[in-house]
Amino acid sequence: MWPGSMSSPFSFRLLAVDGAARSGEIASAHGPVRTPAFMPVGTQGAIKGVHPGDVRASGADIVLGNTYHLMLRPSAERIAALGGLHDFMHWPYPILTDSGGFQVMSLSALRKVDESGVTFRSHIDGAMVELTPERAIEVQNLLGSDIAMQLDECVRLPAERGEIERAMRLSLRWAERCKRAFEQAAPGRALFGIVQGGDDQGLREASARALIDIGFHGYAIGGLAVGEAPQVMRNVVAETAPALPAGLPRYLMGVGTPADLLAAVARGIDMFDCVLPTRNGRHGLAFTRFGPVNIKNARHADDPRPLDAESNCPAARDFSRAYLHHLFKAGEALGGTLLSIVNLYYYQELMAAARAAIAAGRFAEFAAQMQEGWASKRDVATQ
Amino acid sequence: MWPGSMSSPFSFRLLAVDGAARSGEIASAHGPVRTPAFMPVGTQGAIKGVHPGDVRASGADIVLGNTYHLMLRPSAERIAALGGLHDFMHWPYPILTDSGGFQVMSLSALRKVDESGVTFRSHIDGAMVELTPERAIEVQNLLGSDIAMQLDECVRLPAERGEIERAMRLSLRWAERCKRAFEQAAPGRALFGIVQGGDDQGLREASARALIDIGFHGYAIGGLAVGEAPQVMRNVVAETAPALPAGLPRYLMGVGTPADLLAAVARGIDMFDCVLPTRNGRHGLAFTRFGPVNIKNARHADDPRPLDAESNCPAARDFSRAYLHHLFKAGEALGGTLLSIVNLYYYQELMAAARAAIAAGRFAEFAAQMQEGWASKRDVATQ
Repeated sequence: MWPGSMSSPFSFRLLAVDGAARSGEIASAHGPVRTPAFMPVGTQGAIKGVHPGDVRASGADIVLGNTYHLMLRPSAERIAALGGLHDFMHWPYPILTDSGGFQVMSLSALRKVDESGVTFRSHIDGAMVELTPERAIEVQNLLGSDIAMQLDECVRLPAERGEIERAMRLSLRWAERCKRAFEQAAPGRALFGIVQGGDDQGLREASARALIDIGFHGYAIGGLAVGEAPQVMRNVVAETAPALPAGLPRYLMGVGTPADLLAAVARGIDMFDCVLPTRNGRHGLAFTRFGPVNIKNARHADDPRPLDAESNCPAARDFSRAYLHHLFKAGEALGGTLLSIVNLYYYQELMAAARAAIAAGRFAEFAAQMQEGWASKRDVATQ
Repeated sequence: MWPGSMSSPFSFRLLAVDGAARSGEIASAHGPVRTPAFMPVGTQGAIKGVHPGDVRASGADIVLGNTYHLMLRPSAERIAALGGLHDFMHWPYPILTDSGGFQVMSLSALRKVDESGVTFRSHIDGAMVELTPERAIEVQNLLGSDIAMQLDECVRLPAERGEIERAMRLSLRWAERCKRAFEQAAPGRALFGIVQGGDDQGLREASARALIDIGFHGYAIGGLAVGEAPQVMRNVVAETAPALPAGLPRYLMGVGTPADLLAAVARGIDMFDCVLPTRNGRHGLAFTRFGPVNIKNARHADDPRPLDAESNCPAARDFSRAYLHHLFKAGEALGGTLLSIVNLYYYQELMAAARAAIAAGRFAEFAAQMQEGWASKRDVATQ
């Protein structure tokens, strides 16, 4: 296990368990994270279109920063010289950074993976860049995130078992190198390992066991939300989560819809990140208690009702659907900002309700009610 | 003069006079407007990229809505059915609407002006639309603005005297028709006449006299900021303002830079509107006490200083120049929003300082100090 973890500011404690669902609290140098937690994604050091004050007001305890984007622009060294990512983006609360590996796979045109790491062509200026496990940790140290992720190789599904296993084994060797590199990190920061293995449960369990032998502050399930069927994701989560230490946080990377989140919480997941609330918001799709709303639809043009008069989100209460519709029709960026805020509140309130239901021992009932509500509404926002 | 104006909620009182400069207060059904006043421009029912709460926090008492844009999309009838423009844009404070005439001239490809009004092709859907003086008032009544403007014809300068006079005389006949049409307006709302006459002072004075004979709640100087030299504008203002009633508000339309505003206040102007703070903000140009800042310039990439650590504007204090630079380089819309807010605060604080200087009887000294400061800085933001 991790040396010195008892004395570090990073810790996790479970507050309630209800079936496989758990609620808890992460302590970090930048404050607490209530779990289950949803992390808004600040790809380039900003939650797109949303002031950090509004992100905080929505109930977010922690945000995610993308190492790939930030290392390319403005560069990790520049952010470090400016005092680190918390100061840079004016977010003095917890930050998790990914390792950059996933974006290398999805965004860079040319890439070469070998034992040492991955070499890729920057999507910004075409420069060739090398990302090794050691460099991934160095970059995250420079950013100063509270939670760093190991470098891994993520395979798009479906894929051959041999290819999935090769990437999983490589990711394990990179995990060991990341842990060694992380020993120079400032005290109080955490490093999470990432379980790989695609849709092969034997590989997933082998990956989990090997990572636990190495020892991390928390464990992520990676390589999902990469093209597989929803039921595949749910099965992998259901079978992998129990293989992870009960006393440490479990993070399902890049997931997902509100229904995905509750399904994963039910299977023992504690942390999530996804661009869906802000991306959907910019595209005119709002999550509400009454179901998803495509505000660009002409039927909203004369609707004086707000998205949700009872919401805790001012943007959902203060503006009519007709006005929000008009902003999108007129190409006013304020519309995307307001709907992004609406969606961030929706996600955070869903997590808060899940935590309360777990504490009350009625999570299964809560999740079933929510799923039933979603199923009865035409879920245009997540198509 | 205007019948019943004493009993209406709309009124203006002078609080201090210092040379030709004045400070005062407009009372309206939606609250007070401290003058000299700067009105941010909400062209399509939104101050571009800025939440109305931030507009208010910047110190704005009143905003401007563009009749031309709103009548075409979403339509004045739709806004009226939704409760009027104040409710629509969630701005429960004073609103002034222009008449639409200026935008017809500048935005519509095909237009025909005759005695009855102006017919033009919508820049949105190509439909032919007629705007008469009566329709301009009807549209503004539907929007429910606190201050409506007469329909006028605005001539781009330089122009022949004969053409300027023709448009000025037509605008006077339209002014009479607007006043008649306005008699059906809800009590408490105000109608301003617009002095035309280009750069010909004889025509300007004839226009002012004829408008005063008709009788309005306030008087605007129109047809400036349309291509003339800055000194031409200042001369027209200096010679026209004294021809307007001392006890009523005077509004210089579409102007301008901070230096333009102080020059016009010195000549007796009370109200301004301009897109410059928000347009410049979206383009990366910030107004600060230390001079204009082009945040996209590479020299800001490593600058940890905020735009102004002592500012009342949180956006000017909370984010480093390096971060704002990064947002623009990375194409993050949050950058334009933050700089728009910075500039709105700058304009409002300039007006607040002008009001205080007038009250203290030292406006000339204040304006000279500001002009000297601006002259000593390379004014890249207003090029």
